[in-house]
Amino acid sequence: MKRYELLADDIARSIAQGVLRPGERLPSVRQTSQRRSVSPSTVFQAYYLLEARGLVRPRDRSGYYVANEVAALLPELDTASRPTGDVGDLDVSARVFEILESTRQREVVPLGSAFPSPLLFPLDALARAQATATRTLDPWASVDDLTPGNAELRRLIARRYLADGIELDVAEIVITNGALEALNLCLAAVTRPGDTVLVESPTFYAALQALERNGLRAVQVPTHPRDGIDPVALEAAVERHRPRACWIMSCFQNPLGSLMPEASRRALAALLARHGIPLIEDDVYGELYFDERRPLPAKAFDADGGVLHCGSFSKSLAPGYRIGWVAAGRHARSVARLKLSTSLATSAPGQAALAHYLQQPGYDRHLRRLRHTLALQQTAFAQAIARHFPPGTRATRPRGGYFMWLELDPRVDALRLHRQALDAGISIAPGPIFSARQEFRNCVRLNYGHIWDARTEAALRTLGELVRAQAG
Amino acid sequence: MKRYELLADDIARSIAQGVLRPGERLPSVRQTSQRRSVSPSTVFQAYYLLEARGLVRPRDRSGYYVANEVAALLPELDTASRPTGDVGDLDVSARVFEILESTRQREVVPLGSAFPSPLLFPLDALARAQATATRTLDPWASVDDLTPGNAELRRLIARRYLADGIELDVAEIVITNGALEALNLCLAAVTRPGDTVLVESPTFYAALQALERNGLRAVQVPTHPRDGIDPVALEAAVERHRPRACWIMSCFQNPLGSLMPEASRRALAALLARHGIPLIEDDVYGELYFDERRPLPAKAFDADGGVLHCGSFSKSLAPGYRIGWVAAGRHARSVARLKLSTSLATSAPGQAALAHYLQQPGYDRHLRRLRHTLALQQTAFAQAIARHFPPGTRATRPRGGYFMWLELDPRVDALRLHRQALDAGISIAPGPIFSARQEFRNCVRLNYGHIWDARTEAALRTLGELVRAQAG
Repeated sequence: MKRYELLADDIARSIAQGVLRPGERLPSVRQTSQRRSVSPSTVFQAYYLLEARGLVRPRDRSGYYVANEVAALLPELDTASRPTGDVGDLDVSARVFEILESTRQREVVPLGSAFPSPLLFPLDALARAQATATRTLDPWASVDDLTPGNAELRRLIARRYLADGIELDVAEIVITNGALEALNLCLAAVTRPGDTVLVESPTFYAALQALERNGLRAVQVPTHPRDGIDPVALEAAVERHRPRACWIMSCFQNPLGSLMPEASRRALAALLARHGIPLIEDDVYGELYFDERRPLPAKAFDADGGVLHCGSFSKSLAPGYRIGWVAAGRHARSVARLKLSTSLATSAPGQAALAHYLQQPGYDRHLRRLRHTLALQQTAFAQAIARHFPPGTRATRPRGGYFMWLELDPRVDALRLHRQALDAGISIAPGPIFSARQEFRNCVRLNYGHIWDARTEAALRTLGELVRAQAG
Repeated sequence: MKRYELLADDIARSIAQGVLRPGERLPSVRQTSQRRSVSPSTVFQAYYLLEARGLVRPRDRSGYYVANEVAALLPELDTASRPTGDVGDLDVSARVFEILESTRQREVVPLGSAFPSPLLFPLDALARAQATATRTLDPWASVDDLTPGNAELRRLIARRYLADGIELDVAEIVITNGALEALNLCLAAVTRPGDTVLVESPTFYAALQALERNGLRAVQVPTHPRDGIDPVALEAAVERHRPRACWIMSCFQNPLGSLMPEASRRALAALLARHGIPLIEDDVYGELYFDERRPLPAKAFDADGGVLHCGSFSKSLAPGYRIGWVAAGRHARSVARLKLSTSLATSAPGQAALAHYLQQPGYDRHLRRLRHTLALQQTAFAQAIARHFPPGTRATRPRGGYFMWLELDPRVDALRLHRQALDAGISIAPGPIFSARQEFRNCVRLNYGHIWDARTEAALRTLGELVRAQAG
């Protein structure tokens, strides 16, 4: 990071911690320059950056002030969903594809994107790791490192689990082409066509597509925008529907950003173990926490190997490398066999590159920076939304990840908003694609994982205008 | 290649072309050394290598002679299969997995392997391409180059088709995680559970596994070990079973090595087009031809976009990179959507590396060398089998690829032979795994794609002894 960025981050932290309060004046450029022993132009750059992030505002000629539009002005969304229609045969996939395909132009402001900005990742260090790893790759790796994958990479993944307090056997880790393949393989391993699977409401559209493709029926369980799926509602659904599996994101759920409280995560694991129901736990955002420690996934409380925990480097380290994994517990062998006959193996040079990168220090430093950036960007988004959207807009304030879920005025049609926004060069992810029944008509998912700049601010302003127009 | 290897190859070519005939004396070491301007020790090394390959034999002290045990001594297998039991619900997958899992130790002589030796590939050039490509990779490639894949790589693949005389639209090419994923996606795109699919007999076990996993029924069509599937038998099967799709390898079929004559490939495409049946054409060995030109796959004769042609770099350039593709004709959009929701995308750095490699000259030179090596190794194998196996052994002599199919004495049980061979440190691929009905009990597939050496010769000798013992 550049010096002015470090300075800006320090000040942002002071604001976040309340050391500097809304409306307070920032120290003058001269004061800060002297105290920090940096040049005045560095201080100016830092202040500009903070302004761009919506954290401070210049006032006439009297200097910079902490922005008054604090996040609290954006009301938090805190009512759980009430999905309609218990069990669903699915017919969502074509609509989801249409929306995904419409938003893939680079010039669009990617608020509907599923990815954070690639510029937030250590691409140079990865390229060096890739070059070294490929040059020194054992030629026989291409023949030997088939499923379940590169032994060293699997060991390093197991070591990271251990550092988080999760003990597991390297033998249960299968490397996959991203977490999406892992999730699909898990589903194929534990279900048969016609089975019922419990999912959150709203849920990640790819889960719905996977269920549809595999001829599975979805039961959508009420989910709270902050606290995730409710264990009591889940238990009722389990007893009523006797599902064959659950597909759940306990940490920073897509699209809500919800985080189940630890007690709920424990209860989830215990409940499903008691009923012998496999839990497919999609935890690809788990590393992107804003609090002090990584929230433990339900996998940490798995007593009988029934949790298939899916992770990935795509959201935290190496987008585009398509390297994910599953720690599949007692289902590891079935998953490995499916992997073997579905895509045989995952790129040997790619796996070797990530193993090499993870052997060096640097990943945790990168993650700290990434989390910090995402947290700041969420604040900037919340503030901009509070400024530009009409009253009645409510939003989640996730404690990790890079998705925010907005509930708009009930008169707003998110699918229409999606088309209008696209015409204005902005993508959004409309609520209905996250539901088997096209619910969440007045909701959208926004991605705050792209670097905040004037274009983002302008896009949110335009969106706010479109929402106002629809809300009449 | 080293100088002595080049010399050995030249001499091998003279033998193959009949310039040097069986029983003829090779020029003396001194003569060759003078004529070729190489040291006598280089000539010695070349002669030793030829001896190791079974092409020449030392005779007392009078020098080296072209081996008399010409390939003709190994009778060609030329009767078509007669699969029993028309339509099959499948139950093969577990057995196939057991056999694949048992043969994955590196110390085993890999005659049962599905891969050629990685040492036959331009690993250094690939590593350089990978380093350059990753260093210069557009950060946004990880977000933009999702399905259908890297635009430049797809263009280069289309250009190779064009050079072979096959015109197709870049838009129909979808990059996949190896051809195996392509084949699975194609199957999912054109069938529904319960459908019937025509396959060869014997057929690639992964095809049977994919059919089983997708709840499909297999009809196995009589297939000739040299000429592949018979268009007349195929037509009868089409009319009788009204299949939803065909899965066929027209060029150097796995496991037979058969090559359908061009007229049959034309007839195949026309027949299926007439009936509106999609052809999933697995053509991963097509580049490994020993004749002058690449045999045109059925895709070349596809009039209505009904052929889904699956290719890969795994067998011809970059094992372990797991980069394949499908030119899916009118099914391209369905395949792309399935790819998007199954594994999202294929490794961006991996695709960029292959695109970079293919932009340079070198691939065709590498392929020429690879084909030449494989052809020589097939001869060495055929000669060693003629020496070591009992009479009654018949084999295919494929004109490309690296698999040979052996029919042994009818008393031999290939599954038992597999276990005995494994105890002796040798893997083979037993016939029954290539059949839905465990036919081909006395057949095995051998891989001659590993570099011929004394260990290979010893392994074939041991195998021959085991076969003799079983044949009583």
